[in-house]
Amino acid sequence: MRSRTPQHAALARLERRGAQLLIGGLTVEEVCARAGRTPVYAYDRTAIAGRVAELRAVLPREMHLHYAVKANPMPELVREMAALVDGFDVASAGELSVALAGGMAPARISFAGPGKRAAELEAAVAAGITVHAESERELGELARIGRTLQRRPAVALRVNPDFELKSAGMKMGGGPAQFGIDAEQVPEVLASFDTGALDFRGFHIFAGSQNLSAAAIIEAQNRTIDLAERLAAAAPGPVRELNIGGGFGIPYFPGEQPLELAPVGENLGQLARRCRASLPQATLIVELGRYLVGEAGYFICRVIDRKVSRGRVFLVTDGGLHHHLAASGNFGQVIRKNYPVVIGNRMDATEREAASVVGPLCTPLDVLAANMELPRAMPGDLVVVLQSGAYGLTASPRGFLSHPEPAELLVP
Amino acid sequence: MRSRTPQHAALARLERRGAQLLIGGLTVEEVCARAGRTPVYAYDRTAIAGRVAELRAVLPREMHLHYAVKANPMPELVREMAALVDGFDVASAGELSVALAGGMAPARISFAGPGKRAAELEAAVAAGITVHAESERELGELARIGRTLQRRPAVALRVNPDFELKSAGMKMGGGPAQFGIDAEQVPEVLASFDTGALDFRGFHIFAGSQNLSAAAIIEAQNRTIDLAERLAAAAPGPVRELNIGGGFGIPYFPGEQPLELAPVGENLGQLARRCRASLPQATLIVELGRYLVGEAGYFICRVIDRKVSRGRVFLVTDGGLHHHLAASGNFGQVIRKNYPVVIGNRMDATEREAASVVGPLCTPLDVLAANMELPRAMPGDLVVVLQSGAYGLTASPRGFLSHPEPAELLVP
Repeated sequence: MRSRTPQHAALARLERRGAQLLIGGLTVEEVCARAGRTPVYAYDRTAIAGRVAELRAVLPREMHLHYAVKANPMPELVREMAALVDGFDVASAGELSVALAGGMAPARISFAGPGKRAAELEAAVAAGITVHAESERELGELARIGRTLQRRPAVALRVNPDFELKSAGMKMGGGPAQFGIDAEQVPEVLASFDTGALDFRGFHIFAGSQNLSAAAIIEAQNRTIDLAERLAAAAPGPVRELNIGGGFGIPYFPGEQPLELAPVGENLGQLARRCRASLPQATLIVELGRYLVGEAGYFICRVIDRKVSRGRVFLVTDGGLHHHLAASGNFGQVIRKNYPVVIGNRMDATEREAASVVGPLCTPLDVLAANMELPRAMPGDLVVVLQSGAYGLTASPRGFLSHPEPAELLVP
Repeated sequence: MRSRTPQHAALARLERRGAQLLIGGLTVEEVCARAGRTPVYAYDRTAIAGRVAELRAVLPREMHLHYAVKANPMPELVREMAALVDGFDVASAGELSVALAGGMAPARISFAGPGKRAAELEAAVAAGITVHAESERELGELARIGRTLQRRPAVALRVNPDFELKSAGMKMGGGPAQFGIDAEQVPEVLASFDTGALDFRGFHIFAGSQNLSAAAIIEAQNRTIDLAERLAAAAPGPVRELNIGGGFGIPYFPGEQPLELAPVGENLGQLARRCRASLPQATLIVELGRYLVGEAGYFICRVIDRKVSRGRVFLVTDGGLHHHLAASGNFGQVIRKNYPVVIGNRMDATEREAASVVGPLCTPLDVLAANMELPRAMPGDLVVVLQSGAYGLTASPRGFLSHPEPAELLVP
């Protein structure tokens, strides 16, 4: 009965006890009982720590690993992460306050984002974190704020690279963009950098995200170091931080394969050796969000109704696109594809059928799985969407149709 | 200098005082001052009342006009609307509580939605509203809840029609769907309808939404009445409510023209006369959400930075897709198109340029206007996205990147 159609890679690593999916050693029913309700986002603590350990095993020892808080800003998860990684990157004053509350040292926090408001820049300077300046306006604002607060703000330049990350889910370099300062403009900006007012820390160069090709990531990393070395020649002082971004993807859709980490680690080792000579004072930073938490997260919702309409089966659940927009395909996807989905309390089922999992909203967009082969499910059963640890709850329109919020839980 | 490319219809109706856009008689700067911050969603009270009046002028007098709260559940707006329309439709227990708090009589509230949880059905029955049952399971649950609460729940059947609304932005009938009971199954469901336990009210037949073609809407309304008459023959009692949905669209994108209301009203007049004979006890209900509030709403955000990257102009604002997902194109659109956008404090500008309006998020998806001809704008200026009164704030991922919430304001 093995299907020849492309499969979801994430299904291969699932653990179960009898009929029950295990998440962090708990059955999916136990997870829902702990949450006290459905839907639930559950994040597996052990899987997160395991992912960090995998990375540590291949990354050069001197390279710092940062967590991009935007991927999942749940405060308990951020606190957990603070003990695992070397620093955080934040994208707003809101994330900064979660990062500080999570126990990360200010010197290890950086703040990037193309439209930082004055109040956000003030919060960053007051906290003593590094700001990744994305424009000349921000440099001027930072100098002004520094004078007011009698601080010398730590500043790195966010660079819009002159190359792109090939095969990236989301390209962010190579062309015109709102992100950073165009690479070719950077020398001029550096020439007028006010080192009296601002503490020059280095560069942040980020070419794209959600990439599953080791070769493409390696190429982008090599070009990032080339560019950083060129720009360093024009810098007002030594580069002390070089954030080379991340872009490591996870497999969401049928046929996608996990990123091969070994060659990426090996290449980073070579680059780190090279930078010891070319950028001797620079701490190299790789910044990952989705790759650290995406595969550790599960979205669990309960089947409310089972309907057969004109020959097609619909499982109507209490979770939907208002909780998990990405799984519905309405967040940056052009052609909707199914996330990996299972019936978490029927993992041993042999009777299967094609069914669509839909949410409770009054819109045909509210689909968590379209026409997918699943165990035959009934009201009360638990639908689980895998690969849901990053850009899940916070990236969803939670107020849409005024339904209750899902629970969020770290397990075990 | 008149461009031959298709224009946004909504731009034609704007009012201004000097350089300032007027919203409900206030300048856009006055609106922001009232809100105390940006971004702001502002809804023009007068425009909403005007739209209801336009509808009343063409709808047959006996026809009821309902507001679909999901389009915009802002409590003050819902309260305002309660005085203007004849009833509300809600899509969750959360919306029900807003509807009741807004002062609408329970007998004039109905509740539709494909995955109603037991607690929601209980809330509906306890409040004494009409439930639009979407499955046999719901009918069973309602009878059980009625016994428990010693009530006879008011129930209409939501019907999945056997035709579709042609040229609809969102088709909801004709094929398999999670919505309602398939038309061809309804007679059998009616045959076993438990009139001892449940008070049969009638039908809810809805074929699609966001339609700009009067001919398509007229055809769907005619087929809806045909279907209702056929189903009424199998009903356990007289039809007392017949909700024929809405589907009236508003023009969002270049080249789209407003719906012609007159022929739709005329056709509804004929249908109402026909129903006086065929369904003599039925109140006909047209249910509109977007059409009542969409054009009355404005999303206002402030330019934080102006950047030129590789020859292209970017206006980076404090508003973005986290506040207005639909305008970013990431909510049901396949090919992104621009909403109508203006610079609200430069309405008299003669110097124009092609610019992209982007938000403060670290994602290239965060675009409010791509490469649009706009007055040359600077930091501090106000970008205004029109046609933003429906499915705006609540349909957006407000938690994404932990930025502050926009204000919401009824004006004047």
